[in-house]
This record gives sequence, C-alpha cells and structure tokens, in this order.
Amino acid sequence: MSRSIRLAVIPGDGIGPEVVAQGLKVLSAVLPSDTKLETQEYDLGARRWHATGETLPDAELESLKQHDAILLGAIGDPGVPSGVLERGLLLKLRFAFDHYVNLRPSRLHPTAETPLAGRPDIDFVVVREGTEGPYTGNGGSLRTGTPAEVATEVSVNTAYGVERVVRDAYERAQARPRKKLTLVHKNNVLVYAGHLWKNIFDRVGREYPEVTTDYLHVDAATIFFVTQPERFDVIVTDNLFGDILTDLAAAITGGIGLAASGNVNPSGAFPSMFEPVHGSAPDIAGTGKADPTATVLSVALLLRHLGLDAEADRVEAAVAEDLAGRGSAPRTTDEIGDALAVLV
Amino acid sequence: MSRSIRLAVIPGDGIGPEVVAQGLKVLSAVLPSDTKLETQEYDLGARRWHATGETLPDAELESLKQHDAILLGAIGDPGVPSGVLERGLLLKLRFAFDHYVNLRPSRLHPTAETPLAGRPDIDFVVVREGTEGPYTGNGGSLRTGTPAEVATEVSVNTAYGVERVVRDAYERAQARPRKKLTLVHKNNVLVYAGHLWKNIFDRVGREYPEVTTDYLHVDAATIFFVTQPERFDVIVTDNLFGDILTDLAAAITGGIGLAASGNVNPSGAFPSMFEPVHGSAPDIAGTGKADPTATVLSVALLLRHLGLDAEADRVEAAVAEDLAGRGSAPRTTDEIGDALAVLV
Ligand SMILES: CC(C)[C@H](C(=O)O)[C@@H](O)C(=O)O
Ligand SMILES: CC(C)[C@H](C(=O)O)[C@@H](O)C(=O)O
Repeated sequence: MSRSIRLAVIPGDGIGPEVVAQGLKVLSAVLPSDTKLETQEYDLGARRWHATGETLPDAELESLKQHDAILLGAIGDPGVPSGVLERGLLLKLRFAFDHYVNLRPSRLHPTAETPLAGRPDIDFVVVREGTEGPYTGNGGSLRTGTPAEVATEVSVNTAYGVERVVRDAYERAQARPRKKLTLVHKNNVLVYAGHLWKNIFDRVGREYPEVTTDYLHVDAATIFFVTQPERFDVIVTDNLFGDILTDLAAAITGGIGLAASGNVNPSGAFPSMFEPVHGSAPDIAGTGKADPTATVLSVALLLRHLGLDAEADRVEAAVAEDLAGRGSAPRTTDEIGDALAVLV
Repeated sequence: MSRSIRLAVIPGDGIGPEVVAQGLKVLSAVLPSDTKLETQEYDLGARRWHATGETLPDAELESLKQHDAILLGAIGDPGVPSGVLERGLLLKLRFAFDHYVNLRPSRLHPTAETPLAGRPDIDFVVVREGTEGPYTGNGGSLRTGTPAEVATEVSVNTAYGVERVVRDAYERAQARPRKKLTLVHKNNVLVYAGHLWKNIFDRVGREYPEVTTDYLHVDAATIFFVTQPERFDVIVTDNLFGDILTDLAAAITGGIGLAASGNVNPSGAFPSMFEPVHGSAPDIAGTGKADPTATVLSVALLLRHLGLDAEADRVEAAVAEDLAGRGSAPRTTDEIGDALAVLV
C-alpha cells in the first residue's frame, strides 16, 4: 500500500520562504517511505501583489482546493497597505475553506527564554473560532474622512458557528489528561454575543460531564496568562479574543518564533492550512536569523490533522530535544532545519 | 481663601468599602487645611440591586452630577447576572458623564512582585477611549436561544469621539519627558474603524511635531507588553483593546492591587470618576487582605484632575515609599491605609 500527500505550499514573503523550506525538509525526513509527498507551490503574497495587483485569484483558490493541506510561511511587507493581504488572501482562505477551528497550542519548553521561564508546566491549547466574530468584514464607514465620519465594525456570531467550535473544543479537552475547558469572552459588556457563547458553552458541556469548565472575561484571562498560566488546559474563544490571547501566549512561552497554528476545517470538506503565528519579519529576511521552529511545529499539527500521529509526535519530540540542547551560539535557519531533520 | 471639594463616594460591594475607606483616609490626610472635603455616600451596587432591583435611578444620577468628582470602590457579586451592573451602573455612569478619557497609568515599582521584576523602568499610561467602540450596547440577538440564533455586537466609532481622545493623548505625550505616543488598534482586520483611528491619529499628529508616534496591532502590542514594556510612553486605544491591555499592564507591573484608573471628562462638564481597576473580590472581603493601594493611587489621579498637583505628587511618593519598604510580613487593608496617611 502506498499513500501520497498533495500539499499546497504558499511560501509568501520575507522570512516565509526560508522557514517553509525547513518545514518541508523536516516533513520529508519524517514521512514513512510508503508515503509520497507531492508539493505544489503558489506564488501569493506581497511580491505577487506588487507585480500584478492580485491577492488570490479565483483560479488559484480552486486549485488550492484540490490539495490535502496547505503549508503557509508568512505574508506581507511594509509596502502593502494594511488590510489588503489580510482580507484579500489570509482571511479569504480561512473563510473560503471554512477554517472554523483556529488551533494554537502553547507549551513552555524548559529552555525557552521568557519572563516566565522556570514556571511549572505550561501546556495549553487555544481553540480560536476562525470564521465569525469581528473578522467577518461586516461594517462600514459613513462620510469617510470628514469630521462627521461614523465607522462601524459588526461582530457576527451564530449558534451554528459557535456550537461547532465549542463542540470541537470539548472533544479536545475530553481527549487530554486534565480535561479542562475555559471559555473566554466578555459577556458582561458584549451581552448579546456573550450570552450566545455562554449558553451554548453550558448546554454542550452537559454532554461532556468529565470535562471541568470555567469562564473568564478576556481582560481577566490576560492576567492569568501572566500569573497562573498553568491553570489553562483547553481554551475556546472568539476570533478576535483568540487573536490577542495567542500572541500573548506566544510571548509568555518562549516567543513568537515557537508558536504554531492550524486553520482547520475538521470536516475535511476543504484543505486545512498550517502556518507559524509570526509574520514575514522583513527586517531579518535573508539574514538566516529566522527560527523555523514555529513552522516545523505547524508541520506537526499538519501531520496530526492528516492522521499521522506517530510522525507528529516525532516532530514535536525533535523540537523539544533541539530546544533542550540549545546553547548560546546562534544557528542559522538552515542549521536548525538540518538538526531537526536529523532528529526526527 | 478656602476651597471645598464635593466628593461623591460609591463604596460598592465586597472589598469596595474597605479600600474606599483607606482612600478617603489618605485624601483627608493630604488635603491642605484650607480645603474642605464634603463627601456624600451613594448606596449603589450589588447589595442595592439585590434589595431593590435598582442599578442607578435617575434621581441619583442627577444628584451625582452635582459633585466635583466621584470615588468608586468596586461593584458586583457572583449573585448578580453578568452585565446587569456593568451596563446598568458602571457603563451608564461612563456614558452619562461622557468619560471619554479612561486613564490608566502603569509603573513598575521596584519591589513589585511580577514576572518582570528587575526590568528597566516601566512607566507608561494608557489613554483608553471610554464612550464608543464595542461598549455602546449596539447590537442584538435574533431567534435567541434557538439553533438559528444570530447575535451581533456593533463597534461604533466616530470622528468626533476618536479625535477628542487622540488629541487628549497627544497633549499628555507632549507633557511627558519622552513624548512618545503609540496607537494600538487592529487596522489590518477592522479596516473601517481602524482606518478612521489611523487617519485621525496621523492628522492630529501633525500638530504635535515633537511627539514621536508609533502604531501597533493589538495582538503585537501584547507581545511587547511582556518583552519590551519600556518601549511604551503614552498609548491611545479603543475602549475594548484598552480594557484588555490595561489588565495585562497591571499583571506585568505588580498586579491588579496597584492599578489605578480615572474615567475622565476633560471638559469638566460632568464629574470625573476614579476607581481601582480591580473588582469587588468577594472571596477576600472582610478579611483585611485587600490592598488599598490601587484606590489610593486613584485618589492621586483625582487630586491631579482637580488641579491639586502637589498633593497628587505626595500621594504617589507615599505609595512609592511604602512599596519600597514592604517586607514579607503581610499588613491589613487598614494598616496600609494608616501607613500611607502618615507618609503623605
Ligand atoms: C494577519 C492577521 C489577519 C492575523 C489575524 O488577525 O488573525 C494574524 O494576526 C493571526 O493571528 O493569524
Ligand atoms: C466591569 C467592566 C464593565 C469594566 C470594563 O470592561 O470596562 C472593567 O473591566 C474595567 O476595565 O473597568
């Protein structure tokens, strides 16, 4: 029997291509010999936009759909107006492929450099809703640019959208040793959306009697991230709160250079997309300073999503081993990738 | 010549009355002898709501208006449904009295217990918009409680509202030694509101050539709060982002027990309100464990707002001295208040 993985690759801009190259190196090294990797590269991002004005043409969206998964590096450079590539490419992919589970694990590796170094084990995962909330692009501006301008942003939350992500989070909590799920929202102020989230969270929770539940307002959650991060196991939250909390989580657990993410469509109807949380970091592009670890950990999420759990475990173990052995001598992007490819 | 300050006092619930008593003690101790303090207490909060179902009757709102300032302790207990006192009392006051500048200073005191202890000087102030954004109560729910529910929250942003708070923030930055102002928003996703904020920030900035400006997305800002807090001087931001960032700021600078805030109407048309950022902490109410420092620092903000700068300086100096001398022996709420009253 032989398998093949059809992987779409979007290297993107800045350090994107550099870290993606290492991700692919590790992926090739870890795959069993009966599994073939077929990659197809897509030239999308700032470079493409500067050249052609295109962000994500329909033909390419259709073509991307034909893959088992997507690996993305990083998108953007300072020359592109804010919002163009975010709305026109990154969010367009998340919405078009119905990536309603935005998965962001945080683990404090023993040698990570963080203000919280030496703290008890931190090991939690944020399940961020990915297709609703303030990210829908609803809203507008009236009398734009005048002293009478009014600009609105509408957060849209549906029972359909909230229930499916909440259910996914309960499943993940149920499968983990601690079986704890925390809902983060702001239901004392955002009462309409907040009550929808809380009601569904409570109702679905009755189907998971083994899962311990907790609720925190988003502002209080940031405090606990700093003072008591070990209290978290699985967190489920809104698109915007999840965006904010996962960057904070990266900061406290060793930096954005280690933070992986998956934009997941659990039904499999569309390909899921895996990407490091960090951006294209144009200031260090080409210097070999980019840490490919976040991309490699995103590859682990990709493997797990495709059911290759043993391979995912080996990638994560390799990263843990590499981090544990890191000395003060800096290594290049390529050297870290080589080391990880050997370790898997 | 003699002056008098007409102060409305809302002790509130839980530890609220305990910390407010210390705030008043220090206020009385620091005021010059020619300044009379007339306080009037208002019974508002969870206790009142449980007893009468009232949150803030019109008559009391009118009566509060007659004061020079308001000192508030903390509101709420777990028996009140989420949102009732927030929308019916706290936010009602902020909106009715047009508290468009929500002022939240953060300073890392040398002996503060925080993961960032020992870091270079942290001394920044967040100017949080207080009357717009997702806090306006706009939005709603359709088919509530059914599988077809849709709940929306509308963030409302006006040129009028944004310009006045941005201008206030520039004035504050201009008056500080470092003269740096950072706008925090999420203009790559919330493009309508984000562009309104950014355009006004840039335009008003041209009137303040001495002020250095910077822009950060809210997610990136949380990273810098943890890794490089010294990069901030004055931050101006949206109501919700300000809520989240100031709790995080409190966590990194020594805890919510030290975080002060002012809900300010700079025009003086309505009384401004000063309150600790922390909540009513029912778990420690009555134990004497509550730290009144955040309330005392809120009193300093109140004094400065009333033009009593020398007195405000003395209160802040007393807090700094008290924190510097803190040993490991715990003191009661009352003992800390007494110590501060002596030090001013
Ligand atoms: C680039 C931006 C659209 C994106 C987001 O806000 O989701 C990023 O911050 C992330 O977290 O993946
Ligand atoms: C209690 C709540 C309404 C309030 C807010 O969200 O503004 C609080 O968190 C604060 O920061 O003062």
